[in-house]
Amino acid sequence: MIYFDSDYMEGAHPEVLRRLVETNLEHTVGYGCDPYTQQAKEVIRTACSAPNALVQFLEGGTQTNATVIDALLRRHEGVLAAEKAHINVHESGAIEHSGHKVLTLPTKDGKLTAEQVDSYITDFYRDETYEHMVAPGMLYITMPTEYGTLYSLSELEQLSEVCHKHHIPLYMDGARLGYALASEECDVMLPDIARLCDVFYIGGTKCGLLFGEAVVAANPETLPYFFPLVKQHGALCAKGRILGVQFLTLFTDKLYERICAHAVTLAQRIREGFVKKGYRVAIDSPTNQQFFVLPNEVVDNLRKKGVSFEDWCIRGEKETTVRFVTSWATTEEDVEELVEKL
Amino acid sequence: MIYFDSDYMEGAHPEVLRRLVETNLEHTVGYGCDPYTQQAKEVIRTACSAPNALVQFLEGGTQTNATVIDALLRRHEGVLAAEKAHINVHESGAIEHSGHKVLTLPTKDGKLTAEQVDSYITDFYRDETYEHMVAPGMLYITMPTEYGTLYSLSELEQLSEVCHKHHIPLYMDGARLGYALASEECDVMLPDIARLCDVFYIGGTKCGLLFGEAVVAANPETLPYFFPLVKQHGALCAKGRILGVQFLTLFTDKLYERICAHAVTLAQRIREGFVKKGYRVAIDSPTNQQFFVLPNEVVDNLRKKGVSFEDWCIRGEKETTVRFVTSWATTEEDVEELVEKL
Amino acid sequence: MIYFDSDYMEGAHPEVLRRLVETNLEHTVGYGCDPYTQQAKEVIRTACSAPNALVQFLEGGTQTNATVIDALLRRHEGVLAAEKAHINVHESGAIEHSGHKVLTLPTKDGKLTAEQVDSYITDFYRDETYEHMVAPGMLYITMPTEYGTLYSLSELEQLSEVCHKHHIPLYMDGARLGYALASEECDVMLPDIARLCDVFYIGGTKCGLLFGEAVVAANPETLPYFFPLVKQHGALCAKGRILGVQFLTLFTDKLYERICAHAVTLAQRIREGFVKKGYRVAIDSPTNQQFFVLPNEVVDNLRKKGVSFEDWCIRGEKETTVRFVTSWATTEEDVEELVEKL
Amino acid sequence: MIYFDSDYMEGAHPEVLRRLVETNLEHTVGYGCDPYTQQAKEVIRTACSAPNALVQFLEGGTQTNATVIDALLRRHEGVLAAEKAHINVHESGAIEHSGHKVLTLPTKDGKLTAEQVDSYITDFYRDETYEHMVAPGMLYITMPTEYGTLYSLSELEQLSEVCHKHHIPLYMDGARLGYALASEECDVMLPDIARLCDVFYIGGTKCGLLFGEAVVAANPETLPYFFPLVKQHGALCAKGRILGVQFLTLFTDKLYERICAHAVTLAQRIREGFVKKGYRVAIDSPTNQQFFVLPNEVVDNLRKKGVSFEDWCIRGEKETTVRFVTSWATTEEDVEELVEKL
Repeated sequence: MIYFDSDYMEGAHPEVLRRLVETNLEHTVGYGCDPYTQQAKEVIRTACSAPNALVQFLEGGTQTNATVIDALLRRHEGVLAAEKAHINVHESGAIEHSGHKVLTLPTKDGKLTAEQVDSYITDFYRDETYEHMVAPGMLYITMPTEYGTLYSLSELEQLSEVCHKHHIPLYMDGARLGYALASEECDVMLPDIARLCDVFYIGGTKCGLLFGEAVVAANPETLPYFFPLVKQHGALCAKGRILGVQFLTLFTDKLYERICAHAVTLAQRIREGFVKKGYRVAIDSPTNQQFFVLPNEVVDNLRKKGVSFEDWCIRGEKETTVRFVTSWATTEEDVEELVEKL
Repeated sequence: MIYFDSDYMEGAHPEVLRRLVETNLEHTVGYGCDPYTQQAKEVIRTACSAPNALVQFLEGGTQTNATVIDALLRRHEGVLAAEKAHINVHESGAIEHSGHKVLTLPTKDGKLTAEQVDSYITDFYRDETYEHMVAPGMLYITMPTEYGTLYSLSELEQLSEVCHKHHIPLYMDGARLGYALASEECDVMLPDIARLCDVFYIGGTKCGLLFGEAVVAANPETLPYFFPLVKQHGALCAKGRILGVQFLTLFTDKLYERICAHAVTLAQRIREGFVKKGYRVAIDSPTNQQFFVLPNEVVDNLRKKGVSFEDWCIRGEKETTVRFVTSWATTEEDVEELVEKL
Repeated sequence: MIYFDSDYMEGAHPEVLRRLVETNLEHTVGYGCDPYTQQAKEVIRTACSAPNALVQFLEGGTQTNATVIDALLRRHEGVLAAEKAHINVHESGAIEHSGHKVLTLPTKDGKLTAEQVDSYITDFYRDETYEHMVAPGMLYITMPTEYGTLYSLSELEQLSEVCHKHHIPLYMDGARLGYALASEECDVMLPDIARLCDVFYIGGTKCGLLFGEAVVAANPETLPYFFPLVKQHGALCAKGRILGVQFLTLFTDKLYERICAHAVTLAQRIREGFVKKGYRVAIDSPTNQQFFVLPNEVVDNLRKKGVSFEDWCIRGEKETTVRFVTSWATTEEDVEELVEKL
Repeated sequence: MIYFDSDYMEGAHPEVLRRLVETNLEHTVGYGCDPYTQQAKEVIRTACSAPNALVQFLEGGTQTNATVIDALLRRHEGVLAAEKAHINVHESGAIEHSGHKVLTLPTKDGKLTAEQVDSYITDFYRDETYEHMVAPGMLYITMPTEYGTLYSLSELEQLSEVCHKHHIPLYMDGARLGYALASEECDVMLPDIARLCDVFYIGGTKCGLLFGEAVVAANPETLPYFFPLVKQHGALCAKGRILGVQFLTLFTDKLYERICAHAVTLAQRIREGFVKKGYRVAIDSPTNQQFFVLPNEVVDNLRKKGVSFEDWCIRGEKETTVRFVTSWATTEEDVEELVEKL
């Protein structure tokens, strides 16, 4: 069997696990006050060129989004997001559990434009009854998006500008951020993100760690009283150093960059393989997720041959959109085998 | 330095970590649908003599309490608990974040009695205005308690009986449950707990795992729709098998029992050492936490000699109550060194 | 000036106020336990042919929706509603404040169809990841809708059937229900609504009272523990008898029917007036709200002549959709004056 | 029958009702934007010597407390209050519904001291684990307290000072404020309260109105975005002018002062009557609530003779603490009749 279902099917990158083993019996204080966590924060600050940044490690993506959004919004505000955004569709109502509405904007490719955001907010305050409606209190974007697409530096600058024009923070969900940064088409770097997004997180779970996400706010005043809120959300890791050790390893010797680049390269090779065979690309994704429209017999045949992957939409009558995902754990052999089996 | 600060200062028991390493590169589906998680659930069901039990793995204690309590209570209900209960004092308002009040009862040793619970509930419904007050909708207890003390089988039976008499579920926070079960004074076994408590959790974080808690409900109908609620609370581990592998290892070859017994034996040896030197035991704890009232100079001296431990209360003028905690990671040498330094 | 802005611009119908004055100095117990409230509940049960119904008086519409929806949903569930539904647009996030997502369906005229609901729920459970999404736990409809349109008996029966097929309750927001029931096109009566909707409310604020809404559930088991939840939501009127006296008056001598019929008749006369003059009807509403597309100069002219009414959408370049609303307080003279001024 | 059960047994003071009748058919815009509401705000600002104050009318006490507390607290904070405070005991968990913990302090007479508050907050931040606990984010007091007792000007100044020393706002629940201000023992006036409390409310429901409470914040920046939060809490009155007209009347010609003074005078006469007969005063209350410890036969006898009043505690074996309450609606004849019947 070869697997392209998702990027969280294996444990941690072996180097990360090796460091966990090496440090396993050391004694450290809990809740992230240990030296590994402090060092991990420092290397992330350096990688982001954000020397004063607040860095906080949390356990998973849904809880990170729920906690950050709860921290950024006032009680009467909601979060602007794309209709297909993870927080709107796949988090079982975690945002609403904290009392906030997700205000949605339509998108074709998962990306929001500064114009959309600007006109939404402008129209909102033009309505005389706006105080009876949920105020847009922040903007949530994903990079790469749920469709594997990317914001360019210029698009990101425009989003940042429009947010600050309207005095709301910009938050980027970076669950798969490494796969964006590693893409050839990406002209954005970590320091750009730290500068343009008020808050963002560097996803570890999908990029080489057992689990863990690193929230970054270049200006720590953006997230006052964040620690007790993390605890309140049940998102504080008791043995915090486990997150510290993992992130420290990920940001040592460019491990993060290397393993994500590996995944993206293989994903592009898969794409070439499918295109060569004449199959249709469903979404133009330069990252580690690839989407194809395949005839149902091709879908079934691949599965019979031991290729594992997910339907992206409900199966069609004749053809179905499917998704192939690579990760740090995908091997060149896996990809070659897939292309052969096409 | 020798450390007795807490039972979450190290990583995982080496055997647990070894299994994580061995299984690291296997491919499994996410969110706990993998075979390791299924096997881990099965060994826990067996250990609890609860063949139909719902078993769900979560990441940490605060989120487990918040999620279970949210699942068990109706919107207008609160949770009855001891004044010093973890949920009332040390969870940054996680229970209230989900909309529920913690209704407190006084205790001397962390334990609640069936009489207390009975009279609280009886008085509550005797008050004509009870519909203007928060109804007691469940009972929360800890085993061992925050003071290291234990409920006997008979006390637990009485609590279970009084809860069912008043039609409310009984929930046990078992963050340190293994250290209770391993105590010589404990006449309660896992199947008793599964039978008497509607829901309880077997804490992994403090008993040998990197992180992870296992919620158990002998009758799965007690926790309907628990999975989406876990997701909503941000408590669902994407790579669920990491929890599965850890718990499976913990419940293989009685590892859980052995490592907890080790910790409790060492804790009792510490106690003997202190008592022999004439120091006062603050709370009579038969588990892995020991509390002593020490003259301040003794406290300071021990620390100077490289013994690390926590003050349990605010430092007194002459003497201070301190806590010594052992774990699976504490060694006989640590304890001998401590006793020598006394 | 003549006013057609809304149906909550005046106080109470004089008969209602007269009864408040007459009973003003009587002594009664609080919170709705008084005899007036009991009588009011009884006349509503009779009017609904629902002899065992739970009837509970609340103060206003937003709080009624928030409280009922909170009572009907489990924690992980959301409420299905039309995109333009009041709860989704004009309640400042009150539903989300209680932790629930509003799941929206598109509509053209404010009405949802059984087919839409059926296919939404069917598709939802067909998605393998549905436990990561907010489950549709109830259906919210308005009668008349925000556009003044009506569900027919047959449409309502179909909605009721599809809800029960999927085991979710049907809830009707009846803020303006009287104006629906009074419409000639309406083939639904109160007992039909009580039979087909698991819960609904009879709006008083917009139909002759100072304030107050009556929640009705033909089967009281649909809303267990409703009273403490009403209190928790801050929706319990201390001097409950003020609501009791008002509703008792409204349901005596068919006052409710008479005053609502009066408003609907005048609204239809307004419509005829506009149509005769050749103006375009924006939405075909058989109730007390009328929507027209008027050239901007007509809009401005009418206002200059002392006619007060609201723009329904943002003012267009040449023409604008406007709304004219009648109520029990609108007089024939008002309408004649308006038609003259056209 | 003569009634001393509570101060919300009748409708509105006749003068208030008269003004509602007089203005009933006027047309005004909704939600408090009408001229009556504006005038009412202005007279309250004047009465408080707080010319820039934010004044907002809400419908009832529980919702006022829930909304103000939600507005004042950050997400991780709780509200400090007396153990017997209304928000802790009699609001069905409304504060927790919005996600906030009530942090309680013991009292004998319902009053908190500046020393208590100071040492609670000081101890809180002295605890190294304070970020795992709910931070005291504001102070809630009642005036008069649930026991009818009063804060002196000097006590209030000290509370205000200690709050500001610790950078938390002071909030006063004034459900019965008029009966405090009217007491001979009260050396505090409305402008003092407006100056010393960051936010407070002037209760209307128990002091002459049908319903309604007026929130006052001398510095409007204390409650930013309050209007949408009021709406979100379901606390916004659609026909806002009903509250405006009532409060305007209450603050015209010193009606508020006169009717409250009337009630307090009669309450003191009741007290004298009981004391003369040798009965024991349970709590020394200078306001409109009086508490006595009466032999059970006296309690029963009075009730047989047609005197209506409440037990304050659960009935004792021989004697019971009872409460007699007067209001603007109590007559001199009622009191004379009561004293005779003793």
